[in-house]
Amino acid sequence: MKLQFVFFAFTLVIASCATKEHNNSHPGKFAIVIHGGAGQIDSTKMGNELQQKYFAALDTALELGIKSLEEGRSSIDAVTKVIVYLEDNPLFNAGKGAVFTHKGRNELDASIMSGIDLTAGSVAGVTDVKNPILLALKVKEKSNHVMLAGTGASEFAREQGLEMADSSWFYTEKSFKSLQKALEQEKALSKESSVSSDFKFGTVGCVALDKNGNLAAGTSTGGMTNKKYGRIGDAPVIGAGTYANNKSCGVSATGHGEFFIRYTVAHDISALMEYKGLSVKEAAYEVIINKLEPVNGLGGVICLDKSGNCAMEFNTSGMFRAFGNSEGERIVKIFKEN
Amino acid sequence: MKLQFVFFAFTLVIASCATKEHNNSHPGKFAIVIHGGAGQIDSTKMGNELQQKYFAALDTALELGIKSLEEGRSSIDAVTKVIVYLEDNPLFNAGKGAVFTHKGRNELDASIMSGIDLTAGSVAGVTDVKNPILLALKVKEKSNHVMLAGTGASEFAREQGLEMADSSWFYTEKSFKSLQKALEQEKALSKESSVSSDFKFGTVGCVALDKNGNLAAGTSTGGMTNKKYGRIGDAPVIGAGTYANNKSCGVSATGHGEFFIRYTVAHDISALMEYKGLSVKEAAYEVIINKLEPVNGLGGVICLDKSGNCAMEFNTSGMFRAFGNSEGERIVKIFKEN
Repeated sequence: MKLQFVFFAFTLVIASCATKEHNNSHPGKFAIVIHGGAGQIDSTKMGNELQQKYFAALDTALELGIKSLEEGRSSIDAVTKVIVYLEDNPLFNAGKGAVFTHKGRNELDASIMSGIDLTAGSVAGVTDVKNPILLALKVKEKSNHVMLAGTGASEFAREQGLEMADSSWFYTEKSFKSLQKALEQEKALSKESSVSSDFKFGTVGCVALDKNGNLAAGTSTGGMTNKKYGRIGDAPVIGAGTYANNKSCGVSATGHGEFFIRYTVAHDISALMEYKGLSVKEAAYEVIINKLEPVNGLGGVICLDKSGNCAMEFNTSGMFRAFGNSEGERIVKIFKEN
Repeated sequence: MKLQFVFFAFTLVIASCATKEHNNSHPGKFAIVIHGGAGQIDSTKMGNELQQKYFAALDTALELGIKSLEEGRSSIDAVTKVIVYLEDNPLFNAGKGAVFTHKGRNELDASIMSGIDLTAGSVAGVTDVKNPILLALKVKEKSNHVMLAGTGASEFAREQGLEMADSSWFYTEKSFKSLQKALEQEKALSKESSVSSDFKFGTVGCVALDKNGNLAAGTSTGGMTNKKYGRIGDAPVIGAGTYANNKSCGVSATGHGEFFIRYTVAHDISALMEYKGLSVKEAAYEVIINKLEPVNGLGGVICLDKSGNCAMEFNTSGMFRAFGNSEGERIVKIFKEN
């Protein structure tokens, strides 16, 4: 019953992102779109309780972002605030909820970019920073570099006074037990072909358009379960997992990172808009459905154009996602239809 | 006199890359373009002896690549062969000649991409692999990943049986003395505003079009002198420092990597060609001169389109570069005019 209410509340405005076209020429309009990972999720087999937890978390994240934009804060601020919340929420494969590598460690990646001047910050393979998105923001704003990796990135985090987290934040006795339980659940669910791929492809991201018409995008991930060899996915790669440009759009991606790097997904969507005149929906569809699906490059993107039009395109059965704007439109969905 | 001969031999066909347009519809045609870094080089102050060394090295690299393509080998083979040679040559900031980080280490980055199927391999922050481009190739061909970093990448290199190199390869007593000498030279040259920036921005790269009409691109670098915090530049970032797509072009970049990442330089050139119909020269000019120069994003690119037309565009005073093709055109140049 509670679930039904949540469904009702969150799907009140169904049309919104999927059909309307906005033109954000007058000030004061804003929009925000969020994802919490894409994967092969079987709606009939995913428990109601778990769905409800995801809906509630996405709704909280959305309201945090909307409040921030309503107060007149920048899109960078809104994106950061939303991603910090999702990183701290163990439901998602980012920050606290990061999956474990082959060696039982947590290696976190994140990036953030401003559409005003294409400034960006990115971190890869960080093991001891509580909120990687805050470190990416520090790289953007306080360093001469764009991309930092490993222990060097941690050194920079400490110098910048960021909150560090030892492995107990990601791997306490309690979280170890939760992990074991989750693994058992995952194993059970896997047998039923339910949400197993979510754990592999989970990532969080946010794109915002603020009242000043500025776009920003950010992405954060715990990477792939069982990843080896210091693998870097698309999340910290500007142009692949994250991109923002006031001339075109902001994009955050989630999926099988190797494909998203090779297809330069985030920048490709922007380029299709800027150079070929496609709308944000057409561009996202072209890349995710026409280019990636035929090569089995699973995943999705969230995008906002400079007028606040949004695309939430994915070629998996589900993507945790939410959208809201200054006109009161709200969407929170997991599967294709709801 | 020897230098004059070299100049004569290398500039016999001046027109070539800068003016002609090719249409590679019939098989058997090939082309290759190489760079060895871009920077602010004062032609009047760079010694003849050093210029001669660079010309000779670029010529050797060019002939290696041409021979490989003449024999019918793939563009990936040609690119790999050329870059291995440049990595082993201490003149260039890649492999053996890599510059030192803030902590006196060598952290090497490289990437390679095939235009046939957009497969790619990339490594970042590798300290103990003799030829990073060979490791990038192994990542492309033998792993499920695209991008590996740090000790994880080294572990993969060892598993793949690649030749490892301890710090003595990069930092022997002899190379230490050479470094001291080079530093003194650099210091002296710096006073004269000569080649100081080359050491900062040096990188090597190669793009090839083989007889089957397939493009490939690769890039390798020793990074920025005095780099800190595990900084990753554009060389290992697919879409920034390296990109290849048979539909458009192959690109390898060299320059101030942070700008090349933020502007997604290599993929942007490809997108301008594919979506906006620009020629390879127009696209390279648009990105390097119209976009990067105004924001002081120093550097350059080498590009080949699917018909073998080339662009060698840079916004610094010089770029070590070479071009050759199956029609006998040859260019080896350092400065704008020669």
